Amino acid sequence: MIKFPKPIQNLIDQFTKLPGIGPKTAERLAFAFIKWPAKEKEEFAKVFSQINGSITHCSVCHNISEKDPCTICSDKARDKAKICVVAEPHDLAAIENTNEFKGTYHVLGGVLEPLYGITPDKLKINELLAKVQKNKISEIILAFNPDMEGEATMIYLKNLLQPFKKIIITRLARGMPVGADLEYTDEITLSNALKNRKEI
Amino acid sequence: MIKFPKPIQNLIDQFTKLPGIGPKTAERLAFAFIKWPAKEKEEFAKVFSQINGSITHCSVCHNISEKDPCTICSDKARDKAKICVVAEPHDLAAIENTNEFKGTYHVLGGVLEPLYGITPDKLKINELLAKVQKNKISEIILAFNPDMEGEATMIYLKNLLQPFKKIIITRLARGMPVGADLEYTDEITLSNALKNRKEI
Repeated sequence: MIKFPKPIQNLIDQFTKLPGIGPKTAERLAFAFIKWPAKEKEEFAKVFSQINGSITHCSVCHNISEKDPCTICSDKARDKAKICVVAEPHDLAAIENTNEFKGTYHVLGGVLEPLYGITPDKLKINELLAKVQKNKISEIILAFNPDMEGEATMIYLKNLLQPFKKIIITRLARGMPVGADLEYTDEITLSNALKNRKEI
Repeated sequence: MIKFPKPIQNLIDQFTKLPGIGPKTAERLAFAFIKWPAKEKEEFAKVFSQINGSITHCSVCHNISEKDPCTICSDKARDKAKICVVAEPHDLAAIENTNEFKGTYHVLGGVLEPLYGITPDKLKINELLAKVQKNKISEIILAFNPDMEGEATMIYLKNLLQPFKKIIITRLARGMPVGADLEYTDEITLSNALKNRKEI
């Protein structure tokens, strides 16, 4: 294989380290990047060089944040008795975008995947338990992706939290998403939608 | 929409500027990036900050290069009488990887796309003509993508170069690619493959 000039090969190597970017895509991105005006290239590098130190984790909800505690945890209007447990910061962002939830969050940092070494001690589960023991919590919403790992994590947390009798433990409703087609909906989703049908 | 912390939003904005990266992909890349170890993040930023000034264009073939003239143009073993004209540096890389061509290159910097403002004066066409007038050239290979713009550029260059009677102007063979399926090959490709059939 021809070697691209070293600086370009470096760009390609860096892009390849990002998820979902293969060598061919990385090549395309690198060649597009070097065509940018010098000033925009500088700006790009600057943004990436400034990230270290500018991002921290909220010590209360473990979300990524610029300050500690984060804006949500330090907001007095949020209901501290309701905790929505999510896997990742972008799940939190998705729920915030609905404008439906006025409680607080707890970001686990992932879901249980023992095969990949993600055991309970790798997640912020002890921190969640400590929070539940210390504060008066009325409801915990387990908001995970409805896939194998998400379901397993929900069951694990539900068992852990069961001793706290006063806390209601809920999960996101299962049913048909907006725009879905009965004909093409999988059986588990459809059977969930049927079981949870609501009077109108 | 929830605003991510400013530094992360900045990452997302920068990623979105790259071709083929939409807002959702950019978000995924940004969140993956901030999980990198601090050292790797620094390395990433460094590579991108060093690109300005480290890459130049070869004044002979107009390929991107670390030095001017580039390694190919300054290689005495390469046949200077044969010029392979390509649109972009990555086309040159693709041809170099075949190890078939021992001549030199001329990178136009694109193909003719008048609708998008890419007229002949935007490409290195005058530089190609100057090269042809000054040097003794035996063959010019027009190696463009066999699409509308590539074909148009080839026809344009062929007409320009026709006055130089001694120069043979060639193009890449058209036919079936390795692994193709007769049944699914389009008619133009198949008719080209038939027209250009070879005795075995």
